[in-house]
Amino acid sequence: MNPPKTDARRHHDPEVRGFASDNYAGAHPEVLAALALANGGHQVSYGEDAYTDNLQSVVRSHFGPTAEAFPVFNGTGANVVALQAVTDRWGAVICAESAHINVDECGAPERVGGLKLLTVPTPDGKLTPELIDRQAYGWDDEHRAMPQVVSIAQATELGTVYTPEEIHALCEHAHAHGMKVHLDGSRLANAAATLDVPMRTLSNAAGVDILSLGGTKNGALFGEAVVVINQDGVRHMKHLRKLSMQLASKMRFVSVQFEALLARDLWLRNARHSNEMAQRLAEGVRSVHGVEILYPVQANAVFARLPHDVSERLQKRFRFYFWDEAAGVVRWMCAFDTTEDDVDAFVAALKEEMAR
Amino acid sequence: MNPPKTDARRHHDPEVRGFASDNYAGAHPEVLAALALANGGHQVSYGEDAYTDNLQSVVRSHFGPTAEAFPVFNGTGANVVALQAVTDRWGAVICAESAHINVDECGAPERVGGLKLLTVPTPDGKLTPELIDRQAYGWDDEHRAMPQVVSIAQATELGTVYTPEEIHALCEHAHAHGMKVHLDGSRLANAAATLDVPMRTLSNAAGVDILSLGGTKNGALFGEAVVVINQDGVRHMKHLRKLSMQLASKMRFVSVQFEALLARDLWLRNARHSNEMAQRLAEGVRSVHGVEILYPVQANAVFARLPHDVSERLQKRFRFYFWDEAAGVVRWMCAFDTTEDDVDAFVAALKEEMAR
Amino acid sequence: MNPPKTDARRHHDPEVRGFASDNYAGAHPEVLAALALANGGHQVSYGEDAYTDNLQSVVRSHFGPTAEAFPVFNGTGANVVALQAVTDRWGAVICAESAHINVDECGAPERVGGLKLLTVPTPDGKLTPELIDRQAYGWDDEHRAMPQVVSIAQATELGTVYTPEEIHALCEHAHAHGMKVHLDGSRLANAAATLDVPMRTLSNAAGVDILSLGGTKNGALFGEAVVVINQDGVRHMKHLRKLSMQLASKMRFVSVQFEALLARDLWLRNARHSNEMAQRLAEGVRSVHGVEILYPVQANAVFARLPHDVSERLQKRFRFYFWDEAAGVVRWMCAFDTTEDDVDAFVAALKEEMAR
Amino acid sequence: MNPPKTDARRHHDPEVRGFASDNYAGAHPEVLAALALANGGHQVSYGEDAYTDNLQSVVRSHFGPTAEAFPVFNGTGANVVALQAVTDRWGAVICAESAHINVDECGAPERVGGLKLLTVPTPDGKLTPELIDRQAYGWDDEHRAMPQVVSIAQATELGTVYTPEEIHALCEHAHAHGMKVHLDGSRLANAAATLDVPMRTLSNAAGVDILSLGGTKNGALFGEAVVVINQDGVRHMKHLRKLSMQLASKMRFVSVQFEALLARDLWLRNARHSNEMAQRLAEGVRSVHGVEILYPVQANAVFARLPHDVSERLQKRFRFYFWDEAAGVVRWMCAFDTTEDDVDAFVAALKEEMAR
Repeated sequence: MNPPKTDARRHHDPEVRGFASDNYAGAHPEVLAALALANGGHQVSYGEDAYTDNLQSVVRSHFGPTAEAFPVFNGTGANVVALQAVTDRWGAVICAESAHINVDECGAPERVGGLKLLTVPTPDGKLTPELIDRQAYGWDDEHRAMPQVVSIAQATELGTVYTPEEIHALCEHAHAHGMKVHLDGSRLANAAATLDVPMRTLSNAAGVDILSLGGTKNGALFGEAVVVINQDGVRHMKHLRKLSMQLASKMRFVSVQFEALLARDLWLRNARHSNEMAQRLAEGVRSVHGVEILYPVQANAVFARLPHDVSERLQKRFRFYFWDEAAGVVRWMCAFDTTEDDVDAFVAALKEEMAR
Repeated sequence: MNPPKTDARRHHDPEVRGFASDNYAGAHPEVLAALALANGGHQVSYGEDAYTDNLQSVVRSHFGPTAEAFPVFNGTGANVVALQAVTDRWGAVICAESAHINVDECGAPERVGGLKLLTVPTPDGKLTPELIDRQAYGWDDEHRAMPQVVSIAQATELGTVYTPEEIHALCEHAHAHGMKVHLDGSRLANAAATLDVPMRTLSNAAGVDILSLGGTKNGALFGEAVVVINQDGVRHMKHLRKLSMQLASKMRFVSVQFEALLARDLWLRNARHSNEMAQRLAEGVRSVHGVEILYPVQANAVFARLPHDVSERLQKRFRFYFWDEAAGVVRWMCAFDTTEDDVDAFVAALKEEMAR
Repeated sequence: MNPPKTDARRHHDPEVRGFASDNYAGAHPEVLAALALANGGHQVSYGEDAYTDNLQSVVRSHFGPTAEAFPVFNGTGANVVALQAVTDRWGAVICAESAHINVDECGAPERVGGLKLLTVPTPDGKLTPELIDRQAYGWDDEHRAMPQVVSIAQATELGTVYTPEEIHALCEHAHAHGMKVHLDGSRLANAAATLDVPMRTLSNAAGVDILSLGGTKNGALFGEAVVVINQDGVRHMKHLRKLSMQLASKMRFVSVQFEALLARDLWLRNARHSNEMAQRLAEGVRSVHGVEILYPVQANAVFARLPHDVSERLQKRFRFYFWDEAAGVVRWMCAFDTTEDDVDAFVAALKEEMAR
Repeated sequence: MNPPKTDARRHHDPEVRGFASDNYAGAHPEVLAALALANGGHQVSYGEDAYTDNLQSVVRSHFGPTAEAFPVFNGTGANVVALQAVTDRWGAVICAESAHINVDECGAPERVGGLKLLTVPTPDGKLTPELIDRQAYGWDDEHRAMPQVVSIAQATELGTVYTPEEIHALCEHAHAHGMKVHLDGSRLANAAATLDVPMRTLSNAAGVDILSLGGTKNGALFGEAVVVINQDGVRHMKHLRKLSMQLASKMRFVSVQFEALLARDLWLRNARHSNEMAQRLAEGVRSVHGVEILYPVQANAVFARLPHDVSERLQKRFRFYFWDEAAGVVRWMCAFDTTEDDVDAFVAALKEEMAR
């Protein structure tokens, strides 16, 4: 069969992959196929379509009967919409200093959401009740932004994973102080795959009130979703999404991607595969003398410390980023499409460059 | 060939179309094909990919050598990023009272951009130098938000179209007062098709400084672009896009859609077709006694006044919206996929319902 | 007795007065005396002082037992704090096009409060239920900022005054639609004096939910207060005031000014006097052929239309502003310290300049 | 002479003072006298009055010929206006974790100014070039809020003081990275008094670009001023002040207070006295076994650690606050009106309570 006609041309080599980010990968072919399925004919725009309607039951099969999904465009959008939903104008968000919302969103939580972030340094990207207490005070003090929500990431920015018990303890602690819990789940699938538990075990079963559910890093073309689990006090999410400029007109195309991922097990296959590639990578790296792995490898990321010149030479052969250049720390990410050969070639290259 | 496997299912009838909105249509098949072309392998995320790089030359072929495109997610995002780019914190935007930024974006320009809108009633959605003067004053008065940009839509929310001369006069007037001109071009393709001129004739050739270029209503799955034409004083657009939560990680998939539309003539074919369908529809409607067409039909929209009960009966057969329900005014939109049969069936139904 | 020593010097002539604004006047001597009374010793800052505590009972004597006062710095601050208190992040405010919040606050409601203003043209600065209905719709439409509060000014920017019945009708209408009513009372004292009713008749008795109570234009040095009448749904006003940068550290000095004004009748004496001067002025002006008074003179402002050159010559003798220079409209304001001689001299000068 | 008549009454004992805050003090009598001087007659509002005009030369006598003062209401207002003046929409502020803007302004910098704060832990409230470097990077990275200004406080929240050389080194470092320097000078007078240098030595001479000049804590009734020293790139301060709700209508009364403080030496007398009282207090405290003073006492604050029950008993006799209750740390502040007897009585009470 001839490929469908288009005036666009291919500008890249689809066989080249690296270890820079799970965002460097494209879309999973099954996700792309789903787009075609949802195409054609007219569907009500802005979320009143059959695909978004159907997505609700798909999401409830994962997150329980109270769950409601609001598809949005990207992770920052999901986080800022979700956090606004559970804060007042005077609200503050307790989060890890290394949290994506703090270091990687150009101040969008502050500028768009009017949110104050109360940050806590952590050894491994994970909050604990004790760490939360470093910022959990002063609710009656008008000089202090009021802590109203604790935001955690699962998996964290450092590739570590909370156990269900750890999340449960955090949620109990937050709730006891009248705070809600937001989970940044841009890599929730990876965490669930690592722990071999359903996603609900890490979210509503553990007491999470609202979450940002990742699509893009799990194999979607684009698209995330805010999933409201605890509806108490959450109102007018649709207005909040719209005013936050996260309302897709042809929403069927966001929703059907989530259906492709979540209806059966594509979300898990993708997450499991990228996790396995990270384990294979970590194993290979551990065999290389002089390279130190920094955090437990619990999702699809490997953080390592190695000589700066080695990193630079290696970067000419494979794409990846420095995480803390001064400290010689790099981050290697695996994606749903990373192959065993990719990993093995990378480890071999690492060995070569370390040996030079 | 078997369709590609996916766990998603089809939930709609791809043969059903209505006249509610050009957002109800899906994506043009050539756009969908472009997505597949850009898929596979790793590409730098957040806009450093080969497709976004290539898009720059495509956009310059339309909008001249100074043009620079910043793909974003949706129209509100494009407008708010563009308007922030040409205003200070104290800036205000002069626009028509009926402008999309004023009536259809849930206050996002105000809330996200901190923008004050200075609105002017218009007879047909179009500003003139005289109408601009109703709000163009008080630059030295700190009590007044400072008018720094005039925002026009081409085509307008009312389906009317500015001539190149009209835009030129507006731009000259705005520039003489030290103001810039933003063009909301979510349907710029339709206006260019109507006037049979290149898009640059309606933008940079006429003096427009910055524009929101529509993709979604022109046949894309999703995606718009801010196009900066006059780079004077415009800085750090990438930061502005990111903090406005409009930065796509897998940006190749936005850019390749624009390539599919703009590389040759798909943008024009789609716009021309939807315009022609609107003309056919208007012609049919004019043959129906008792139905009044309200504005010049210059793009892909037809506004009409007809008895309320007729509209309600008709809505049971075809999707469309009231524009001003109290006044009995409805809006009928044609899309790139509207067929002659769709139009003829609709006109026939209108006749029937009017006759009851 | 010698005046108290200070290194500051007098830089103005305390005998010169004009008709530019009630803000041009200084503070009433009794207000100044109150400051001295509150001075000395230590008082808890940020509002926990004895003067702010006492103010509550003073305010309740005017506005009923549910009233609670939150002193702030200025009128824009009072309005923006009050409006935030009765809106959600997606909320909009219905107001007259001529409202101070729309035309004279440099976009602070939008920029600081994230508020969308839905404006309505009015003949005389006054809203009616019918005029409110021009913007009161679309509560379920996420594309539209949600109308949650109607804001009226008493007296209005045009020096007109609502009757208690008119306010009652507005409030009933707003409440029936689930909206609250905010009253911008920077000149509430003038309106009460005009109508010869207590201020409560124009606020809580009529259904007003929250108001900005003016001090500055009533003879204070500085200071306004947000008065919450209907506590339903209003929460954490202190946080809102603080984050809006309207929290005075030495609040005793704001509160004691209000005590000086409100404890007995200084508020009324000041307002009545400035109103009477405006009546005397209006009477004088009406005797001058060729000068047209534009709105009912119901507070302390007189708007007039006269030949442009006459205004310019007159401005060399007395300070006042053009209101609409192109239309030849000027505004003359009387203050608590305007004298009969001031008015008579002004009218005489007007006659002279008209005669030239 | 009889005191001037007023309906306000005295509600406090003017002989009672404590050690809670320099904001608990009232206004210096010379400041109050200045208000009377500026009263009477009409003066142009919103800053076009003779007192604000005169203030410019007073301020230039302290801060050099490029200095321009913009009176505002309070310290948060001064800081947020000043920081907005030197940042773009995407800008971030590097500051100490303990900075007032970070911990004591209820998120106003973030919510009103749209500013991202990049905080650094410090041992004593003071930044250094090395500490700045912990956040000074990533100017080209759109994911990171762009560091555009370093904000320091002089004196700091912890009562410590930078030497002129330290400020100079900070400014050189910041400028070398293209960043500006803001100085929160709510207690600049105290720092200048401690170091026995003119205020300019700590600001423009050291390279500071813009500062918040404190009035309230130096003996004013209310009022602070933004002082722009480096005018490069600073535009439309008046609009910025207005939209930030910091524009006083009767500005003469803010300006004349600063004249009373700054025209000769009241600012210095007040600061010197409160510093001396803090030294006397520190000396007394050092003589009490079991009470540890925590930071160098370089301004008007003493931080101490002592048994919790002692603090609680002592608080029943004198007002003061816990700084870190869990750690048993308290803050004792002296004001311009603190007397030697106040200090001696407090130290005696401390001794008594420690001995119980």
